[in-house]
Amino acid sequence: MSMREQYINAKLSWIAKNTKASIIRELLKSTSIPGMISFGGGVPDPDTFPRYEMAEIAKDVIENEHHVSLQYGTTEGDEILKQEYLNLLEKHDGIKGLTMDHIVITTGSQQALDLIGRTFLDKDSICALCSPVYLGAASAFKVRDPQFITVPMEDDGPDMDLLEKKINALNDEELHRLKFIYMVSNFDNPSGISLSLEKRKQLLEYAYSKDLIIIEDDPYGALRFEGEKVPTMYKMAHDDDKYEVNPVLLLNTFSKVLSPGLRMGFTIGDPLMVRRIVMGKQAADLCSSSLTQRITARYLEQYDPIEGMKPTLELYAAKRDTMMKAFDEFMTEIDGVTWTYPHGGLFTWVSLPKKFDTNEMLDIAKKNKILYIPGEAFSVNDESREEVKNSMRVSFCLPPHEDIVEGTHRLVKTIKEYKQMKGW
Amino acid sequence: MSMREQYINAKLSWIAKNTKASIIRELLKSTSIPGMISFGGGVPDPDTFPRYEMAEIAKDVIENEHHVSLQYGTTEGDEILKQEYLNLLEKHDGIKGLTMDHIVITTGSQQALDLIGRTFLDKDSICALCSPVYLGAASAFKVRDPQFITVPMEDDGPDMDLLEKKINALNDEELHRLKFIYMVSNFDNPSGISLSLEKRKQLLEYAYSKDLIIIEDDPYGALRFEGEKVPTMYKMAHDDDKYEVNPVLLLNTFSKVLSPGLRMGFTIGDPLMVRRIVMGKQAADLCSSSLTQRITARYLEQYDPIEGMKPTLELYAAKRDTMMKAFDEFMTEIDGVTWTYPHGGLFTWVSLPKKFDTNEMLDIAKKNKILYIPGEAFSVNDESREEVKNSMRVSFCLPPHEDIVEGTHRLVKTIKEYKQMKGW
Repeated sequence: MSMREQYINAKLSWIAKNTKASIIRELLKSTSIPGMISFGGGVPDPDTFPRYEMAEIAKDVIENEHHVSLQYGTTEGDEILKQEYLNLLEKHDGIKGLTMDHIVITTGSQQALDLIGRTFLDKDSICALCSPVYLGAASAFKVRDPQFITVPMEDDGPDMDLLEKKINALNDEELHRLKFIYMVSNFDNPSGISLSLEKRKQLLEYAYSKDLIIIEDDPYGALRFEGEKVPTMYKMAHDDDKYEVNPVLLLNTFSKVLSPGLRMGFTIGDPLMVRRIVMGKQAADLCSSSLTQRITARYLEQYDPIEGMKPTLELYAAKRDTMMKAFDEFMTEIDGVTWTYPHGGLFTWVSLPKKFDTNEMLDIAKKNKILYIPGEAFSVNDESREEVKNSMRVSFCLPPHEDIVEGTHRLVKTIKEYKQMKGW
Repeated sequence: MSMREQYINAKLSWIAKNTKASIIRELLKSTSIPGMISFGGGVPDPDTFPRYEMAEIAKDVIENEHHVSLQYGTTEGDEILKQEYLNLLEKHDGIKGLTMDHIVITTGSQQALDLIGRTFLDKDSICALCSPVYLGAASAFKVRDPQFITVPMEDDGPDMDLLEKKINALNDEELHRLKFIYMVSNFDNPSGISLSLEKRKQLLEYAYSKDLIIIEDDPYGALRFEGEKVPTMYKMAHDDDKYEVNPVLLLNTFSKVLSPGLRMGFTIGDPLMVRRIVMGKQAADLCSSSLTQRITARYLEQYDPIEGMKPTLELYAAKRDTMMKAFDEFMTEIDGVTWTYPHGGLFTWVSLPKKFDTNEMLDIAKKNKILYIPGEAFSVNDESREEVKNSMRVSFCLPPHEDIVEGTHRLVKTIKEYKQMKGW
């Protein structure tokens, strides 16, 4: 180790020493290789965003509302934006009666995850989540170095029997240290799965019975292609008098709807919880950008971004269809492969037989000019790594239709070559 | 305690339970009382920002660069912005030879402080800072629950004799846990004091001799009204071959220069340290707003914000003069009062005799319709509270000239009434 490294490493915190760079981030560097087809990225296409409308609004709020848009804002967020977002929640989700104290604006929903870690978790805390899990949540919670309880994701949500079994096995002292259950309720990243109404009810009732908090992350709810909308657990508890405390914190973002460049995150919850998150945010970044908040607020006054999503959803749904058709046709050549059929969102989750290691297989994939995200990126510990290392996240939202078909061929070729290399 | 409170409080982390709302934040709510004159706020006047130029640029980057401005960015920050900022550092500070790996963009410099806490501090860590200290730094570091070594701020910087005495008294194990010294090098918030060239040299050499890191926070360096510019400690170490490792992390922001609404922070340092901060940022908010970063980048291509500050600096300097004149004339009626003469920035620091408690005095001030920030807001523990509770931060940047004079009268009246109340 060089003197520089020694000097600096000696000063690092425990968490800095133990933080690894994200696999996805490293992987996405390969996206720029000529001819590469990427099923890796989970980002929306900026061409689908209403840029001309946003450009006019941006000019206007800088010129005419500079006392707000160019000034520090409150930590809680722009009041006009908060009200507009609550109106949107009432219109599309039927959630009524929320006040300014039920909402805080964050710098993307990643910041909400980070602040939730800070607000609820200590080193000896426990939190429960699915395997696979959204890796942004995992990395935010890991900063606090808690223990994790993980349960597999089934076709309609978490394996509730196992979740209850694992939590019921905790003694009182451990149960006290169990803080929350984290879940993406619609079109999960990475699995593409949505929680059924039944599982939502069951999870909510169970969490309430154990005095637990539910972190309901819903960045993809507005990206439904088909099927009936299922209410959020937040709404279910909000509308049911049985719940004296609404145990759900509902996270949302406009990153898939209006633009990730705005870094617009929304957390809805009991005012006592929201207040604690605001106090954490004060030390984290004082306030989110007043400019992007005011742009979003004025956009919401004039337009409905959920309505505006319709053409984009048709585009994504058509790409999902192309991928599902190609999988039905060609992926079935592989013995034991399964994948999820997403009713919305950006992802499908492809699982190979248990002995596969999709991270190891990635070298062959890169040679074949196809990228995916290996399952182990979505695990929090060795146990959950074992549950997902044979799987991969595959996104259909960005590549053109012909690349989706060609990419499927390359993926099938990759799997075959990997099997051959292993002598299976 | 209600059931709701019990339910939620039982889930809180140690740090959430122990975080108090900022005094300043609570105090600034009183700003809106009719007739109130506030010396409290430390925020720039949005009328001084180049809003028409920014509005045009914003419209342009949303319409024509939406693949960047409306998309996720890298965690490190917009490459064009990073390069433009390095150019600015070379032009105005003569810091040459920095690369893309020496810089990370943060969501305001508050986020840099938060990430520095995360990167270097554990519960058993120690960090050194001045008393008074910038409360944003204090609150960011407190999230990690470290121990603090504090030394008084003198007219030319920290009391170096005491700092060395306190650090020399540490045993090897304690010294290992001492991570960094935090300092605002120019026109400190709250004291208004700048570190002399001599103290900068001394601090740098001492820190290097003990293998410590220096966090050099410089949000006000561009707000100099008079006197010769003094190089940053970062530059001194950068230019001196004696330093094999540059132990300084230099923090800056455009919040006083171009607009706080952009949330634009810059951290400059050894690539190994910068890399660790980037890894921390990934879990904190993935990336800062691509939109506000690209607006800032294109602004820097066309304009020099430091040059653009000249009219604003004349305005602030004239207000500083008005306040200093009013203090010379009227504040001198109070026995034992002292204040700092700031050569730049936004603040002066008024100290009353030791027995005063400016927080207690605030009720009288509010009645007299004058606001300041009580000294204890800038302390990290009981020891440092004792050093600053008789002082107050007074800002001259926002009130009109006549309010500065009238506010001084009200402040003098308040101090007299407080003395009377105390029977002194």
